Amino acid sequence: MTDPKSNKQPIYNFGAGPACLPVDVLEQIRDDIPDWYEGMSIMEISHRLPVFMELTQSIEQDLRSLLTIPDEFAVLFMHGGARTQFSAVPLNLLNGSKVADYLVTGHWSDLAYQDAQRYCQPHLVASSKEEHYTKIPEEKEWNFSKQGAYLHYTDNETIHGVEFPHPPKVKDKWLISDMTSNILTKPIDFSSYGLIYASAQKNLGIAGITVVIVRKELLGKEHPFTPPTMSYAFCEKTQSMGNTSPVFCWYVLGLVLKWVKKQGNCETLANACKQKSTLIYDVIDNSNNFYISPVVKEYRSRVNVPFRLPSAELETLFLNEANAIGLKQLKGHKTVGGCRASLYNAMPLEGVEKLAEFMKEFEKTRG
Amino acid sequence: MTDPKSNKQPIYNFGAGPACLPVDVLEQIRDDIPDWYEGMSIMEISHRLPVFMELTQSIEQDLRSLLTIPDEFAVLFMHGGARTQFSAVPLNLLNGSKVADYLVTGHWSDLAYQDAQRYCQPHLVASSKEEHYTKIPEEKEWNFSKQGAYLHYTDNETIHGVEFPHPPKVKDKWLISDMTSNILTKPIDFSSYGLIYASAQKNLGIAGITVVIVRKELLGKEHPFTPPTMSYAFCEKTQSMGNTSPVFCWYVLGLVLKWVKKQGNCETLANACKQKSTLIYDVIDNSNNFYISPVVKEYRSRVNVPFRLPSAELETLFLNEANAIGLKQLKGHKTVGGCRASLYNAMPLEGVEKLAEFMKEFEKTRG
Repeated sequence: MTDPKSNKQPIYNFGAGPACLPVDVLEQIRDDIPDWYEGMSIMEISHRLPVFMELTQSIEQDLRSLLTIPDEFAVLFMHGGARTQFSAVPLNLLNGSKVADYLVTGHWSDLAYQDAQRYCQPHLVASSKEEHYTKIPEEKEWNFSKQGAYLHYTDNETIHGVEFPHPPKVKDKWLISDMTSNILTKPIDFSSYGLIYASAQKNLGIAGITVVIVRKELLGKEHPFTPPTMSYAFCEKTQSMGNTSPVFCWYVLGLVLKWVKKQGNCETLANACKQKSTLIYDVIDNSNNFYISPVVKEYRSRVNVPFRLPSAELETLFLNEANAIGLKQLKGHKTVGGCRASLYNAMPLEGVEKLAEFMKEFEKTRG
Repeated sequence: MTDPKSNKQPIYNFGAGPACLPVDVLEQIRDDIPDWYEGMSIMEISHRLPVFMELTQSIEQDLRSLLTIPDEFAVLFMHGGARTQFSAVPLNLLNGSKVADYLVTGHWSDLAYQDAQRYCQPHLVASSKEEHYTKIPEEKEWNFSKQGAYLHYTDNETIHGVEFPHPPKVKDKWLISDMTSNILTKPIDFSSYGLIYASAQKNLGIAGITVVIVRKELLGKEHPFTPPTMSYAFCEKTQSMGNTSPVFCWYVLGLVLKWVKKQGNCETLANACKQKSTLIYDVIDNSNNFYISPVVKEYRSRVNVPFRLPSAELETLFLNEANAIGLKQLKGHKTVGGCRASLYNAMPLEGVEKLAEFMKEFEKTRG
């Protein structure tokens, strides 16, 4: 993302991830090359150097403080993305059980449910697949298993733009949540959670590292086939340094957290998120169905806003014209088409205002 | 690493990995921030954008051309480091067999052997553990299993500085090799290999991505418990984009390969490697045992040169004085202590010459 204060046309990157980074973070990264420590760049630093180990400790502290993570949770920084967690969760947490409960509300929770079939018989608590993932199934229709080791759900579906307005209510089992696209956009009450994971390339930094926040009492019960680098107990024991860490990705995550702290706390971030998404939803709702949000209102995501235009031709025109004025990566995911505006923390209000203005103007001239 | 052409004291980083990057590569990375494509940095680019997919194809082509990789091999770019491959290899390649053969010649091959115990009964072909990993066991003493699915070995042991002078001779099974620390430092005859892997942070770029070169006929026989992100067949089918790729790590790998191509071919690189390591070994061998290389001469590594001084006090002094004049990260791995100079492709000859001079001077004044 270019600096809005520069003379160049500002670029606003609405991609769903890898997503835009704060301008301040990009500038810091640039300034740190080639000399982050004693004439070496951060990319050339051993993960065993005290200066790097201190950095990782401060990163954990920043995340703990921002999210108010209770002491009974470990915070892990693992290789790879959320997809790896789709296997890591059952491998680590089934603990001999042959069943685990899954709520399916979009592409990613469905994939988590499918990947779990490698390790158990996942029990489908509810699915909105038949409604094309435009809602969260009514809680009264949810059908829990008796023996399920946990309940997995995806707090925000990046592709379908469906978000849980509040955590699912569970009894007798821990909630496991993929919060890749909406972590750090609201306060979290950890009391019902066993584990929360989020890959970094949306609200936490860049692709290649995943944060796992896991209740310590759940550690150490993994299946014998669990690769060490996917074992939560191993990662906790080795302070996420059991093998060479993705040093640069971890460092960027740290810079993003420092930037987030400057914005305020999770309440501040939730308000910003609400304000930005409301701007776009208002344009959609006031467009006489020129723009259509496929999602039932109460489940609309505050971070991923998918929308359709009246025809594929108009969508292409919309994307091309938006692109030309610096509103980038607004194309919807290939599985659903259409358009999508991702409004993570790093997206400034001015970018969203510019998109809202452009949408209104486009509707006026082409509607 | 700072530019040797600048006015600052040149910094030479002898770390074993994450290791030094070529100055040109660091400058290119800095120049590409914040605008790599249409006003976005490479860290903010979707892995699905055509411009990124074209980049990854050219990276694969560069690697294929540098190493002369035959068409019957797939080239995969996977999340994480070599440790993940210690599990991925048996998960993907056992193909129902309960045995696989392992040669143990240092810390990493021993860890690969141990991790394999999660998935099979690995058969110890030979080990130099009792000789403190100072040699490769004599081939005539090797004891192969009859049924072993493959033979795993580590072509160069980063910690112990032991390197195979030529590939192990095998019959009736494929060679599987961890070449993390010496890939791209010599030509490879692929005819005996089933699979070669290398994490990037030594000769290929930065931590967070691993290259896997695998014979296509071995794909698709993975254990049902293999996580999709660790399945070679899945990675091949999805062009290593089955989930969000570590975009930045992949891009740096591409820059390093372009830089390597400018240096020449694998023969050129092998010569440079030989020249640099000979400089240091000559200092060691001419020091009247002031410096000691623990490794039997014919198995000395051309990329990792561990050495001892007469006392722990002298080693500390050596490391401190070296550090003060810009010779960085010469400390040996914590498991073995002492000193170690890593001489990967990005380490310029001038750096090695400066180290050799310093070693001679230190010996003269303290010896």
